[in-house]
Amino acid sequence: MREHYREELEDINTCLVEMANSVGSAMSKATTALLDADVALADLVIAGDEHVDAVRESIEERCFTLLARQQPVATDLRTITTAMRIVADLERMGDLAVHVAKLARMRFPDSAVPAEVRPIFLEAGHVAQSLVAKTGAVIAQLDVQAAAELESDDDLMDALHRQLFTELLSPGWPHGMESAIDITLLGRYYERFADHAVSVARRVVYLVTGERQMQEAATP
Amino acid sequence: MREHYREELEDINTCLVEMANSVGSAMSKATTALLDADVALADLVIAGDEHVDAVRESIEERCFTLLARQQPVATDLRTITTAMRIVADLERMGDLAVHVAKLARMRFPDSAVPAEVRPIFLEAGHVAQSLVAKTGAVIAQLDVQAAAELESDDDLMDALHRQLFTELLSPGWPHGMESAIDITLLGRYYERFADHAVSVARRVVYLVTGERQMQEAATP
Repeated sequence: MREHYREELEDINTCLVEMANSVGSAMSKATTALLDADVALADLVIAGDEHVDAVRESIEERCFTLLARQQPVATDLRTITTAMRIVADLERMGDLAVHVAKLARMRFPDSAVPAEVRPIFLEAGHVAQSLVAKTGAVIAQLDVQAAAELESDDDLMDALHRQLFTELLSPGWPHGMESAIDITLLGRYYERFADHAVSVARRVVYLVTGERQMQEAATP
Repeated sequence: MREHYREELEDINTCLVEMANSVGSAMSKATTALLDADVALADLVIAGDEHVDAVRESIEERCFTLLARQQPVATDLRTITTAMRIVADLERMGDLAVHVAKLARMRFPDSAVPAEVRPIFLEAGHVAQSLVAKTGAVIAQLDVQAAAELESDDDLMDALHRQLFTELLSPGWPHGMESAIDITLLGRYYERFADHAVSVARRVVYLVTGERQMQEAATP
């Protein structure tokens, strides 16, 4: 029984890493769909969210069953309650990828992203990838170093977010209000995606070191 | 021991209701701060978030201790894991009130909200109040009926959100880009506030009826 329990804990952890990869891939596809006005790719992301939700539900139920049957204490208990929180962050990251994809779809056959801010979203997509890769490493290897690096990726995302506003506020923004609203919302989606990755990393760090860090990123 | 356990469960529930009232009051103050450009009130909301975070941490730790010491199963276990999720939603609602307050502060001594959209934000503030009052009732009395009503408040919030965009996109919006960005973000904060209230209600309904509902509100 005890051995099965260890295996189950490890397997849940593997599922969390897979889920992180999966929402990372969703955000990557959503970014491409956005930049290339690729509606088929956007639809793929939107349809894929059902799978992410199902994985969340499955992990939650497995955690719940472990709590009920094994009645773990101390570190094992904290590992399971942390997994239950991480899975919520990851699901939300999947939702944000869907929001990006839906906006790409809504503006098709146009691109929601005009040329002036295209490099910023391209970079935001790269940073999102880097964040998700590190999030996976943090979950898989309880890698506190990767967690620290993740914070600087988040700073990078915040800087990109500020750049977006600078572009929007530059005199003579030629793309009108609808585009400005789209870009404001898109910027927010990428920023929140990064915040959730940071939140996952901090939860793991707390699990490893017992040190709670501020949960809220310093974004307005 | 068992009696203490019941009391502790009930007390955690009372704390959740108080926390709901507290983030509701924060959003109410933030809305007034926004509409009246009241920087002192905005500061009050911003400073108050530390208390909300502390309450979250305290409830989480109490849930954790209950899990570790009492090793509950079945309904009790589900009640505690639900409380741990609800507290995360409520904390996020507090964060969103802070975002509104920070925007009010940033534009002081001006108001971030021009006359054209003032009635919409006034109404959004009222809907937020109604949502929070019902959220409290749902948590306190496991009131499935109030949970259903909460969903229509959420629909109302979504309608207000759409109205905002209509105003922004009307020809000749005279307040420029910065104001449009502010309003887009503010609209998003209120909408997310409502989504989290709905999420809390759905978790309680799931606890009572065992029926999982879709967690994601249908917002882009």
